[in-house]
Amino acid sequence: MNDTITISVDAMGGDNAPRAVLHGAYLALKERKNTRFIFHGIEEQVAPLLEEFPALKAASTLVPCETVIAMDEKPSQALRKGRGTSSMWKAIQSVKDGEADVAISGGNTGALMAMSTFCLRPMEGISRPGIAAIWPTVRSDIIVLDMGATIGADAQQLVDYAILGSALARALFDSENPTVGLLNVGTEEVKGLDSIKDAGKILAQASGNGFTYHGFVEGDDIGKGTVDVVVTEGFVGNIALKTAEGTARQVAAYLKQSLTANLMSKIGALFASSALRALKRKMDPRTVNGGVFLGLNGVVIKSHGGTDEVGYKSALGLAYDMARNRLMDKVGDTLQRFPINKTETSLPTETEA
Amino acid sequence: MNDTITISVDAMGGDNAPRAVLHGAYLALKERKNTRFIFHGIEEQVAPLLEEFPALKAASTLVPCETVIAMDEKPSQALRKGRGTSSMWKAIQSVKDGEADVAISGGNTGALMAMSTFCLRPMEGISRPGIAAIWPTVRSDIIVLDMGATIGADAQQLVDYAILGSALARALFDSENPTVGLLNVGTEEVKGLDSIKDAGKILAQASGNGFTYHGFVEGDDIGKGTVDVVVTEGFVGNIALKTAEGTARQVAAYLKQSLTANLMSKIGALFASSALRALKRKMDPRTVNGGVFLGLNGVVIKSHGGTDEVGYKSALGLAYDMARNRLMDKVGDTLQRFPINKTETSLPTETEA
Repeated sequence: MNDTITISVDAMGGDNAPRAVLHGAYLALKERKNTRFIFHGIEEQVAPLLEEFPALKAASTLVPCETVIAMDEKPSQALRKGRGTSSMWKAIQSVKDGEADVAISGGNTGALMAMSTFCLRPMEGISRPGIAAIWPTVRSDIIVLDMGATIGADAQQLVDYAILGSALARALFDSENPTVGLLNVGTEEVKGLDSIKDAGKILAQASGNGFTYHGFVEGDDIGKGTVDVVVTEGFVGNIALKTAEGTARQVAAYLKQSLTANLMSKIGALFASSALRALKRKMDPRTVNGGVFLGLNGVVIKSHGGTDEVGYKSALGLAYDMARNRLMDKVGDTLQRFPINKTETSLPTETEA
Repeated sequence: MNDTITISVDAMGGDNAPRAVLHGAYLALKERKNTRFIFHGIEEQVAPLLEEFPALKAASTLVPCETVIAMDEKPSQALRKGRGTSSMWKAIQSVKDGEADVAISGGNTGALMAMSTFCLRPMEGISRPGIAAIWPTVRSDIIVLDMGATIGADAQQLVDYAILGSALARALFDSENPTVGLLNVGTEEVKGLDSIKDAGKILAQASGNGFTYHGFVEGDDIGKGTVDVVVTEGFVGNIALKTAEGTARQVAAYLKQSLTANLMSKIGALFASSALRALKRKMDPRTVNGGVFLGLNGVVIKSHGGTDEVGYKSALGLAYDMARNRLMDKVGDTLQRFPINKTETSLPTETEA
């Protein structure tokens, strides 16, 4: 990798593709001049858009593809149909071939994960990949994973997520030993699932090597930003993320109702309008767009499929930052520093209950 | 049950007990005159407080107890130590003995669930109890359960929660066939856990008998109020609830920051102050205080332990409404109307995947 960061882009992924993707790339390029893009897409659709953004065209390569993965296609179908030929597959393949530092797609999440896993393969020492979210909190952004790459996780897989999440925190935030918490239903008592308790014991032993183990955290610790990395299995992570999104929209609706309730509140809203706009920006889900696939031999970012150019700009900025800060090296380093041969760890046999 | 509703109260449960409990009962009585209270507590602590609230004293009986369950006691310890003697146990016993319509405690949740289950026993046809939350949404309040009575749930237990939650919705909201959704990670595709898919099949068959089965819902459907009853297993339910609480506090913190950012925004906040106070009330967790234990031969309400008199007033109001609207009859009725012998249901054997 030289000074230039090359991002491989599935130009056809997402509801507003390819226009929103290209427009987002144009906006991202304005902020980070030393980016190059490899767009994978249907030539007749993408080429005319590149003509609209000459600065982007100068920094891009267009690789034509034959097929596009539909948003509702099952992962197995997508693999059968789109392997080797689709914009999604080819975007990932560019990372595997060393042409790009990172790949990004706004397409079908299940298909993207299946193709990424099939093409890039899990890293040695990691049993399966996870999807990490960058989650805004009152303190600062934090990492929460897994967001639904897989349902269920045993202790070892939770430990893997902790390693991967810590590496991402080290790449994105300025922190050599990010704090890690395991999401659970109680902090003090001996509660929760055995897998979480066992993962806690392993992480407590390994604490200090690329991360600091904090202990269990609860759902409200996410928004507080109690730790830098929150680890949970995919079903719970997905429900937590969507519940938080729903709650944020709910409170925004309450606020809007309140501020339009009567003349005085409307006058107040007028005076506070710039502050309220700042609040709106802060709560805009487009500014934190992108799930990061971790644990594969290469980094793939999933953008929200329904987003617009602003969302794509954010996701592409995230891709750039991760490549720039050498995420893959940091994952490798964290794995290497992990003091225990993870698969052979013998857990204490006494139960604390 | 005559016109008067009798609430059995663990006067010693919660961080601010017994004062906040008695004060809350006084406030609740002012709103619902035909309430009677049976307070279970340490006589030297509770009796002087009753003297402070003569109106409450006139509507109350004080039953002295010898022991109090600590907030950090394990359920098994609490049962050993407090069975028959503690304020918590005696509060539940009053319901069993038919002296009270409903019991309430702000004490240790695990101990309260263990004692309630031991004392009242699960209803016939229900394998285990659940904890339901009344959840405010942009549409109206809805029911979400289980909030962590048990970790994990098979299809049958999810179906039980659907029956219990529907009965609570019928008792609290004006709706004969409340809509029920199963919390899952995707609505269209064949995703999620087998237990959820199987529960969906059973509920689809039984739909129309005391509830209407809506299908799968996702995390953001909770805040939208897409359905009247959201069913999930206890670990996920607990994480979702706490994550939502954390997010609401986070957005409130953002709003405060924004409105104190500069002079204009402060002036705006001044004009909008009554609207903002209304918003604050709407987001006050004390106004929706109380987890409802469902599936036992009697109703027990868990108040937040850290709340004040306003929180206890809300929880006692909830207890009153449930008794008044004959929750137990509605649970029995919904169980009886369920068209399938639940335990003998044979599921379709073909998998859809």
